[in-house]
Amino acid sequence: MRITKLFSKTRKDSPKDETSKNAQLLIKSGYIHKELAGVYTYLPLGLRVINKISNIIREEMDNAGGQEILMTVLQDKNIWEKSKRWDDNAVDDWFKTRLKNNTELGLGFTHEEPLVNLMKNHISSYKDLPIYPYQIQTKFRNELRAKSGIMRGREFLMKDMYSFSKNKEEHNLFYEKMKEVYMSIFNQLGLGDKTYTTISSGGSFSKYSYEFQTVSDAGEDIIYIIDQEKKLAINEDDFNEETLKDFGLNLNKETLRSEKSIEVGDIYSLGYRYSKALNLKYTNEKGLDEFVYMGCYGIGISRLMGAIVELNSDDKGLVWPREVSPFDIHLISLSKTEDYANKIYDELVKRGFSVLFDDRQDTTTGVKFNDADLIGIPKQIIIGEKRIKNNEVEIKDRKTQEIKIISVDSLYDLL
Amino acid sequence: MRITKLFSKTRKDSPKDETSKNAQLLIKSGYIHKELAGVYTYLPLGLRVINKISNIIREEMDNAGGQEILMTVLQDKNIWEKSKRWDDNAVDDWFKTRLKNNTELGLGFTHEEPLVNLMKNHISSYKDLPIYPYQIQTKFRNELRAKSGIMRGREFLMKDMYSFSKNKEEHNLFYEKMKEVYMSIFNQLGLGDKTYTTISSGGSFSKYSYEFQTVSDAGEDIIYIIDQEKKLAINEDDFNEETLKDFGLNLNKETLRSEKSIEVGDIYSLGYRYSKALNLKYTNEKGLDEFVYMGCYGIGISRLMGAIVELNSDDKGLVWPREVSPFDIHLISLSKTEDYANKIYDELVKRGFSVLFDDRQDTTTGVKFNDADLIGIPKQIIIGEKRIKNNEVEIKDRKTQEIKIISVDSLYDLL
Repeated sequence: MRITKLFSKTRKDSPKDETSKNAQLLIKSGYIHKELAGVYTYLPLGLRVINKISNIIREEMDNAGGQEILMTVLQDKNIWEKSKRWDDNAVDDWFKTRLKNNTELGLGFTHEEPLVNLMKNHISSYKDLPIYPYQIQTKFRNELRAKSGIMRGREFLMKDMYSFSKNKEEHNLFYEKMKEVYMSIFNQLGLGDKTYTTISSGGSFSKYSYEFQTVSDAGEDIIYIIDQEKKLAINEDDFNEETLKDFGLNLNKETLRSEKSIEVGDIYSLGYRYSKALNLKYTNEKGLDEFVYMGCYGIGISRLMGAIVELNSDDKGLVWPREVSPFDIHLISLSKTEDYANKIYDELVKRGFSVLFDDRQDTTTGVKFNDADLIGIPKQIIIGEKRIKNNEVEIKDRKTQEIKIISVDSLYDLL
Repeated sequence: MRITKLFSKTRKDSPKDETSKNAQLLIKSGYIHKELAGVYTYLPLGLRVINKISNIIREEMDNAGGQEILMTVLQDKNIWEKSKRWDDNAVDDWFKTRLKNNTELGLGFTHEEPLVNLMKNHISSYKDLPIYPYQIQTKFRNELRAKSGIMRGREFLMKDMYSFSKNKEEHNLFYEKMKEVYMSIFNQLGLGDKTYTTISSGGSFSKYSYEFQTVSDAGEDIIYIIDQEKKLAINEDDFNEETLKDFGLNLNKETLRSEKSIEVGDIYSLGYRYSKALNLKYTNEKGLDEFVYMGCYGIGISRLMGAIVELNSDDKGLVWPREVSPFDIHLISLSKTEDYANKIYDELVKRGFSVLFDDRQDTTTGVKFNDADLIGIPKQIIIGEKRIKNNEVEIKDRKTQEIKIISVDSLYDLL
C-alpha cells in the first residue's frame, strides 16, 4: 500500500487525554481512533494487526478441533435469569438496552448462557460430544473507569471458545491440551518469553483456573514466578496455604520473584454450572441422561494488541513482532528515487510481500524516517539517490536501528 | 469437514415461530439459531456463507480503492447531536444504553457522524482526497417488528463504505463507478439476473439515490422495470412526474412490469450534509477552506444471505450458488464404503476442495440424501457399494437433481 493512498496520518504529539502507553502510541501512529473512553475504532493499520492476531488464534482453535460461529451482541433476559447472571447485583458491568415494546435486553459480555441454550438443539447423544465451538466477536463491559487504552475496553474483541464434554475426565484432557495451545499462541505472537501459565481462583463454579499473564509494567495484576523454565506462576490474589497445598507446592513468598503482569487469556473448568442452570443434557451409552461438562477459554484480542504494544515499543514508537506487523516491509523512497523505488515496490508485491510504501514526494527525509520508526514495521528498506547509483539499498532493522547496505540483486534473498 | 464432527444438526421440522422462508430453512438446516426476533447466531455452516459473501464484497471494495476499518457499536451522543440525528424523534430505531455514570450512548445503525468526526484528524489538504474507507461491521436497528428472518435484523452485518471527495464532480465519478461495482458483486453472488439498479429518493441530503433491488416474492418493496436489458428500475414510491422529468424518462406505469423486490444495497450522495454538521473541511489548491463532499454505499450482508436463500431453494431445502456455498462438495459415504470414501475425501481436500463429508455410519441412506439436499451444497458425490466395485461414483447436481455416473479416475477433472 502506498502511503499517499493511506488515509490515516501520524501525529506529532501524543493525545493528551490518554494515560496508557498503548493508546498514546497507537493513536499517535494512526492505528486507532478514540470514540469514547475504552471504545476505539481500528483504522487500516490497526485492523491489519487485529486480523493478524485473529488469524493466528483462529488457526490454533481450528487445529484444536474448534468450530467457528458468530453469536449475537443482543442478549435475551430470560436465558440469563436461569443462571442468575442477569441482575446488575450479580454482574455489575452489564450494558442494558430495551426494545420498542420495553423488553429489556443486554449486550453480551460473555456467551455461556446463549450457547448452552442453543446447544439444546444440537446435543442429545454421547455421540455428539465432545465439541468445541468458538467465536471471535465484539463484547461489552460497562467498566466504571477505562484508562488502560485497548487493554481494558468497554467494547472489545474477544476469542471465546467453549468445550462441551461427556464428563470431567474427557474435559480434563482438552483443558490440559488448551494450556499448550495457549502458550503456542503467545509464542507465535512474540509474547512467549514473558507469558506465564498462572494458577488462579476459579470463580463460583470451579476451585481453580489458569490465567495467562504477560509480565509488563502496564499490568494490573501481580504474579509470583514459581518455575521460570516451565513458565509457571501464581496470582498474588491466590497465594495462600490452601492453594499451595492443593497444587502440592511448597513455596515461600519472600524467596519468589514477583512481577506486574497483564492477563492476556484464561481457561476455566465450568463443570455443570451452566448445563444444570439451563438443563443441557445428553443420553449416555447406557441410555441414561447426564449433564454436559463444560469449560471456557478466552483471549482478549484487542487487549493482546495492547499488550504487544506495551512490550514492544521505544522512544521512537512502535516495534511490531514480525508475526503481527501490519506489513512485512516499510519501503522508503527518498527524493529523486521514485522510479527506482516503484520498481522495487512492484517486485516485492509480486513476490508476495506486504509493503507499506512511503512514496510521498513533498515530505522530508527526516519526517519519513520518523514516521517509519513510529509506525514500527520491523524491516525498513531505504532507497537513496547515492546508493542506487551502485545498485544498492539500505535495510534497516526497526528494533536495533542497525543498517545494512546491500545490492539490489541480493535484496529479495535476504528478506 | 466430517459431519460426525460438525456440531450443528438438521431438524425434521421447520421452526414454528418463523414466518419467513429464509429463517425457516436456515434454522431447519442448522445454519443459524434464533436468539430473539431479528437476532440470529451464525452456526458453522452459516458463518462460512457469511464469510464467502463478505470476501467477495471485500475484494470489490479493495479493488475500488477502499480501505477497511472497524468502527464501534457504542456511539457518543455529542457527535450525533451535531447532525440532529440523536433524538428518537429524528431517528426512531435507535437502541440506547447508558454508562455507569448515566451518560447516554447509542448502538450504531450507521456511521456517518463518527467517521466524519474521526476524519477531522486525517483530512486537511486536497492531497488527502479522495478516500474511501469502509467496514464490515455489526449494526443495530430497534425495529418494531422483525418477521423477515435475517433479511431485516435488529442486529445485522453490513458493509458500509463512505466516500470523501473534493467536490461534486470528483464524487460523481466514484458514485457512477460504484453502480458498476455493485452490479458486479450481485453478479458474483448469483443474483445478477434478478437485481435492478433502482431510482429512488435520496432522503434529506440529496434528491435521488440508487437502490439495488432483487426481485423476490419475499420482498417488501415494489419496483417498476424501466429497462430489462440495462437492469434499470424505479421504486414505486418514487414513480412520479418530477422524478421522471429529472431522469428524462417518458413512462406509463400501466405498460411497465412491476415486481416485489428486496433492497440488497443502496448508494447515496450525501453532499455536504455531514461535513457541514461536523465541520469537516480541507484546504484546496488555492489555499482556501472547503467542505468535503461525501457519499455512502451500503450492502446488508446478512440480508443478502437471506435474499440468496429466498431465491435459491426448493421443497427439499437450500440450493446455494457455487460462489457462496459453505463447501464446494458434499461427499456422501453409503454403508460399507467408508475406506473408499475416506480416500476420496483426503484426495479432494489435498486438491484444495472444501468438502462436507457425511461419514456417519449409523444413519440411513435416506436421511443422508435428505440432509444433503436440505443443506444445499451444489455438488454431491455419492459413494455406493455397488458402484465402487467398478471404480465408479455418482455426481449429483443439487439443483437439477441430475445424477451422472463417472469413473473415479475422471472425478477430479470433472469438478
